[in-house]
Amino acid sequence: MNSLLGSLLLLIGVVSCKHLPKDEEVCAVLLGNELVEEIAGYKSVTDEILRYVLEGDFKHQTYNGLAKFVDKFGPRPSGSETLEQSIDYMIQLTRDEGITDITTEELEVPQWTRELEQVTLLEPRVKNIAVFGLGRSVSTSPEGITAEAIMVNSFDDLDSLADSDVKGKIVIYDAKFVSYGVSVRYRTEGASRAAARGAVASLVRSITPFSINSPHTGAQNYDNNYPKIPTAAITLEDADMLRRMYDRGEKIVLNIKLISKSDTKTSRNTLIDYKGTESPEKLVIVSGHIDSWDVGQGAMDNGGGIFVSWAVPVILKRLNIKPKRTIRSIFWTAEEMGLIGAADYANKHKNENNNINFIMEADEGTFAPLGLGVGGTQEARCIIAEVLKLFKSINASTLVEQNAPGSDISLFTNSGIPGASLYTENSKYFWFHHTAGDTMNVENEHELDLGTAVWTAAAYVIADISIDIPR
Amino acid sequence: MNSLLGSLLLLIGVVSCKHLPKDEEVCAVLLGNELVEEIAGYKSVTDEILRYVLEGDFKHQTYNGLAKFVDKFGPRPSGSETLEQSIDYMIQLTRDEGITDITTEELEVPQWTRELEQVTLLEPRVKNIAVFGLGRSVSTSPEGITAEAIMVNSFDDLDSLADSDVKGKIVIYDAKFVSYGVSVRYRTEGASRAAARGAVASLVRSITPFSINSPHTGAQNYDNNYPKIPTAAITLEDADMLRRMYDRGEKIVLNIKLISKSDTKTSRNTLIDYKGTESPEKLVIVSGHIDSWDVGQGAMDNGGGIFVSWAVPVILKRLNIKPKRTIRSIFWTAEEMGLIGAADYANKHKNENNNINFIMEADEGTFAPLGLGVGGTQEARCIIAEVLKLFKSINASTLVEQNAPGSDISLFTNSGIPGASLYTENSKYFWFHHTAGDTMNVENEHELDLGTAVWTAAAYVIADISIDIPR
Repeated sequence: MNSLLGSLLLLIGVVSCKHLPKDEEVCAVLLGNELVEEIAGYKSVTDEILRYVLEGDFKHQTYNGLAKFVDKFGPRPSGSETLEQSIDYMIQLTRDEGITDITTEELEVPQWTRELEQVTLLEPRVKNIAVFGLGRSVSTSPEGITAEAIMVNSFDDLDSLADSDVKGKIVIYDAKFVSYGVSVRYRTEGASRAAARGAVASLVRSITPFSINSPHTGAQNYDNNYPKIPTAAITLEDADMLRRMYDRGEKIVLNIKLISKSDTKTSRNTLIDYKGTESPEKLVIVSGHIDSWDVGQGAMDNGGGIFVSWAVPVILKRLNIKPKRTIRSIFWTAEEMGLIGAADYANKHKNENNNINFIMEADEGTFAPLGLGVGGTQEARCIIAEVLKLFKSINASTLVEQNAPGSDISLFTNSGIPGASLYTENSKYFWFHHTAGDTMNVENEHELDLGTAVWTAAAYVIADISIDIPR
Repeated sequence: MNSLLGSLLLLIGVVSCKHLPKDEEVCAVLLGNELVEEIAGYKSVTDEILRYVLEGDFKHQTYNGLAKFVDKFGPRPSGSETLEQSIDYMIQLTRDEGITDITTEELEVPQWTRELEQVTLLEPRVKNIAVFGLGRSVSTSPEGITAEAIMVNSFDDLDSLADSDVKGKIVIYDAKFVSYGVSVRYRTEGASRAAARGAVASLVRSITPFSINSPHTGAQNYDNNYPKIPTAAITLEDADMLRRMYDRGEKIVLNIKLISKSDTKTSRNTLIDYKGTESPEKLVIVSGHIDSWDVGQGAMDNGGGIFVSWAVPVILKRLNIKPKRTIRSIFWTAEEMGLIGAADYANKHKNENNNINFIMEADEGTFAPLGLGVGGTQEARCIIAEVLKLFKSINASTLVEQNAPGSDISLFTNSGIPGASLYTENSKYFWFHHTAGDTMNVENEHELDLGTAVWTAAAYVIADISIDIPR
């Protein structure tokens, strides 16, 4: 196989000036006819799953189950009783399906609770500034911090300022949204980088391309080398207004009151196993995180991911479809506080890492599925691409390469375990992400059915094919 | 002319089975070549105006002026000191242009100030319900009203219920958005129609097709035949959640606290005249309302309308273009409280109604202009359609027929005075309408330039052509 691959790569090298070989050509050689035919042979089973979800008894069950769950519990922040109740509820829902191979693993999680958040523009005019504190921000005094604010477009912009321009000031990061990956650094690192220059607080333009005066919360990480300063997100609208005032030379004075409470509580990762018939020790993991931010309802982030992952063992059991490897559905806890649950699992199960054949997480929206975002070797991607061909009828055959698919599972894929995220038509995902607008209104019955079908059928094929996904 | 018209109409009657005559064919006959050529002859002047706004000294001045205004004052609710300060500011801005023919007309306006608005879902779970009280809603007691809620989709739905189903309950109107005109009745009439059935309070699904958990405020009218009950708007998201709970048979209990203060203050309509050279007594009015709701910044509703209307005399004066009739730019006050300023003007000037040649208001957004929405006779529309042909180069030549164009000016057009609104690409207007998201972020520099250019040039031509706009 290796020498064949060498010849192929040589051939690719020769012809690449004229036309780059398509992934498909490479994959054909890498996989060989037998495996391609084997995967294509799953069509009758995957079609059965699609029919069951799209037209059969499971039709709209993901949406309805999710709506009932979200309406019942609402936000499920790390450390809250509601989160634990919602975990109990999902366990009972699973037991009701006759699935009993359920494990919970306890761990300590942070609880960060907002009590008062109020930012007021004092100069050049009095105006309430809509705001959400960022995760684990320290509190101000009850009177708050009153200080002059400066606007910066970037870390470079901040670094170019004299110490005297920053010391004692509130730094407002006003970087326009480029992509989540690029722009989120101002949220996650902004406070400490401002503190490093002597700022007394920092505000960040919400990480979104669109707003109806909606602030977006999210995690941030203090660097222990610098003082911890209060930090919060403001809306695009207020950031733009403050920028205009600043550019006109007007002095901006703000009062920032951010009061929160921090604690540590016990939570749980939840593992639901659907045992493999031939290699039960080998795992295909499907997952989502059950905790959410406190400001919305946690429908999109990540109730949808929980429900499509919960559906995998449920649907396979109902249809009596039994894969060779074990499918493990995991509900991570405390993701929003920094992948706390996933890190605990990775640590407790580090000796079993070799047994994770493939790991999947649906945490980028459960909109209409287009395929999977896959991390792994070329050969691994070729296999998944072949699996995705089974979903041509519902236009979900696209494979996009992702270095770190998913959120929690990046802890695993970063160490070489192949994995995938549910890749969906999520162009509006960040409009609602970490806002009060993360509600059932973002979800759609049919799109959730499509996502459930693809997620279940793909996990099944990967868990059943004759070869392990190579690393 | 009349017998020619008769022949034409007969001809139209004859051929109408095969193809309906186009407006253009009718207009060609109605207007005659001479007038068509006269209007076309304005192209050099209208092009001069377009160039001055789109490429010349006025480029981006509407956006910049509006931004400065909105940033300085923010919301300008009826009866507030801020509104009066913003009127003074606009008068000074006009004087700075060397325009001195400025009149203000005082009138009494309502002031309705929210002090506390808090709605809490108590059953089936505790949840804060985002809310904006509706204009002039009465207050609850400080402890609020705690009662069971019922959901209705329509007034018919409400009327079909037994008295015992409604009495003592909170009525929630959950009518899906069809169009503003159709759906707004649940906001304006909902409280009294619920009170008529014995309800103790009413809530209405916000009048919008889209939301990021954004409540939309707005006016409502109590019917004096029924008790005045507190009333407010909730978000699409909460309305849908409550609907799902209700449909599941869950009992919905809410606590509604709405505390506001009502007063009467003096405000002013502002009239800026650019005198006509031949018939100064004849008026072409351009207008917008300077008051806004308190919850946003009043940039779109209706700062944009104020600034494009302010620009008309300013640009004509700067370019030394002098129409035969007077152009009057009016900033109505207290529109949001129910066209209070416009009604006062209509009353004070009722003897001059015959002198209003044409009346225009830009209160449906200042997005990219597509043309004008016109109310009036067929002949009036034909003339305006001909004027709009002058704006083909910027794709703003569309005439749409509107029975009641504008908001304030409907008081005039309803009595037969021809008039127009600025017709724009405003498909997202109601996403932001009466929300905290009515800010400068909805406005665009180039689109405001286009609107300013069309508004100014159209008003000028109408004020200068040889014939009055027929009624």
